[in-house]
Amino acid sequence: MSEAKTKAGLQDVVAGESSICLVDGKEGRLVYQGFDINDLVGKASFEEVIYLLWYGKLPNASELSALDAELKKNREIPTDVLELVKSLCNSSANPTGMEVLRTVASYLGAVDEDKSMERETHIKQATKLVAMLASVTAAVGRFKQGLDYVAPRNDLGHAANFLYMLNGKEADELSVEAFDVALILHADHEFNASTFTARCTVATMSDMYSGVTSAIGALKGPLHGGANEDVLRMMMEIDSVENAASEVRARLDNGVKVPGFGHRVYRSYDPRGLVLKRYAKQLTEQVGQTKWFAMTEITEGVVLEHFAKKGKDLKYNVDLYSGSLYNAMGIQVELFTPLFVISRVSGWTAHILEQYAHNRIIRPVADYVGPIDQQFVPIAERK
Amino acid sequence: MSEAKTKAGLQDVVAGESSICLVDGKEGRLVYQGFDINDLVGKASFEEVIYLLWYGKLPNASELSALDAELKKNREIPTDVLELVKSLCNSSANPTGMEVLRTVASYLGAVDEDKSMERETHIKQATKLVAMLASVTAAVGRFKQGLDYVAPRNDLGHAANFLYMLNGKEADELSVEAFDVALILHADHEFNASTFTARCTVATMSDMYSGVTSAIGALKGPLHGGANEDVLRMMMEIDSVENAASEVRARLDNGVKVPGFGHRVYRSYDPRGLVLKRYAKQLTEQVGQTKWFAMTEITEGVVLEHFAKKGKDLKYNVDLYSGSLYNAMGIQVELFTPLFVISRVSGWTAHILEQYAHNRIIRPVADYVGPIDQQFVPIAERK
Repeated sequence: MSEAKTKAGLQDVVAGESSICLVDGKEGRLVYQGFDINDLVGKASFEEVIYLLWYGKLPNASELSALDAELKKNREIPTDVLELVKSLCNSSANPTGMEVLRTVASYLGAVDEDKSMERETHIKQATKLVAMLASVTAAVGRFKQGLDYVAPRNDLGHAANFLYMLNGKEADELSVEAFDVALILHADHEFNASTFTARCTVATMSDMYSGVTSAIGALKGPLHGGANEDVLRMMMEIDSVENAASEVRARLDNGVKVPGFGHRVYRSYDPRGLVLKRYAKQLTEQVGQTKWFAMTEITEGVVLEHFAKKGKDLKYNVDLYSGSLYNAMGIQVELFTPLFVISRVSGWTAHILEQYAHNRIIRPVADYVGPIDQQFVPIAERK
Repeated sequence: MSEAKTKAGLQDVVAGESSICLVDGKEGRLVYQGFDINDLVGKASFEEVIYLLWYGKLPNASELSALDAELKKNREIPTDVLELVKSLCNSSANPTGMEVLRTVASYLGAVDEDKSMERETHIKQATKLVAMLASVTAAVGRFKQGLDYVAPRNDLGHAANFLYMLNGKEADELSVEAFDVALILHADHEFNASTFTARCTVATMSDMYSGVTSAIGALKGPLHGGANEDVLRMMMEIDSVENAASEVRARLDNGVKVPGFGHRVYRSYDPRGLVLKRYAKQLTEQVGQTKWFAMTEITEGVVLEHFAKKGKDLKYNVDLYSGSLYNAMGIQVELFTPLFVISRVSGWTAHILEQYAHNRIIRPVADYVGPIDQQFVPIAERK
């Protein structure tokens, strides 16, 4: 039992091969199936990226239209699922959106009549999960505000339909574009914690719903999802452009972690953060809600300066500017981690498909550090 | 991207420290917190082993009685959960017990009002999961047979109460003892696939229900749970003591895998299998249902001889004899993997507690083998 061999958190351990996503931390590049995300943003839709992740190539017009039709077919929430969502949202335990989504993903699997393990079935299930988890997130957003369910519209794309189902009105063009881009940017990130958890789950040849349910459970943890929530909550707590710099400095001086900076993999800029900042600036100006963006930009400057003084080249990550962006679309903070699901489910399902295609059960070993040779003592004699 | 570094399935990769369980594959020993399972079987109850796994020591009388009371308090299935279980069992999709348990575990988390991340809360949640998942399994077993729910009895231990809730009558003494032993033997097994999945899930600091939900999803896969089902189904297919040897030989000659043999870790005997065989022999004789046991013993002989001829020292594992044992207790084949949950949830929750106590997010890396520098082509020009 050599302690030296232990790779805590499996950091830098190669856990398998993958052709889905390359995270080039040194160059600050994120690549999906060979395409740099900067070549996709503004050119391809989220639906095209879903196809790319699943099939390894961008769809032609007829392939895209087939996927689009299948997604639209799965947008409407069936009555039993809607009842489950409603009853959970009305529960006195006040479950988070992530708890609702985790339960719904598992429930959808239980009531799916097609239990086959063919790739064709898995693609259908993945499509259903992508469509349905977006609709359920919108429904949760409405129920939590005491509003009624808004049925989907089939004349809208995935991003536009989500914003419509959440806000009950059609979103402006820039909001739709920015949300579509946010979905693309969060779609995949190699063997991140939730994706790796999904792969561990299905590597026993368990079903796709089990994989996605596990991934939602993992993403729910504050060390994975949730940092963009923390950013906006901090801004709301400070609630002043004038005091932002001094308040952030005070936090840093007191050793309080300021969310939205640094990344285990990116040593240079997080390429997703750069794109999101651009959209956040543009959209917050358009809707006239510049406060959170302005405070976030001040925070960026203060944090970078603070760490530069210590000789550390810290950069902001994907989570810093997404909060002010989502807020400008009318999305409440409580939905930020569920938004992550709506996007990342495309990557999870791509990884699950890849795991099935080259499967090996994932079973590491532990370094045993417990007691040895304990002597059994009958209960009456135990202290 | 060196392929040589890839550890497929993380085989033999040390993924972390643990003091819960030592699997000594060479000596064929299984040790819980320093206690050899052979020192626990027949001496300690499953409830004592749960305590051992969670606290690292066997309980004294008052500690055991406190755990026992808490387990009993959580036996009765609340109305909303029972309705969910009933509606799932009545679904035309005919979900497996595992799909019901996975959904219930997630649901229980959503409706739990105490979302704190204190150890005290986690122990309460673990206790609830151990008690409730057993009750739900019994309820599923009854609903699937078109029978009514049987409410728990608080004058019975965990094993006896489960058999009572499932069969609607008190089980005989030997059945209770054998079931209790089976629960102890399956309680933990180091970083097996479902336990490791649970740890990956909660290593983002996600909640205990997320961890257990993920673990159920992983155990659901046929490469993990399910082998004991396969053994009994094979016996039922052959359905003849006389033909057992020739039928098994024919399978082996045709390259068909016979379930219940071999183990990635145990090079010697699987110590759990030896104990289960003893109980299976005794119980099947007592209830006068010796057929499956006799066929299983014949299978053991044929398989060992077959591999010995090839110079391979193959041994049977924990799954070979549990089928005939469970069958003699009146438990239907469809419940065998859920039975695994009833036991292993004690180990999962112990590992989740340990992960929280020394947490580090679990995030390996992938060996990227996909395309590089793909050129974006507008959709109209794609083939």
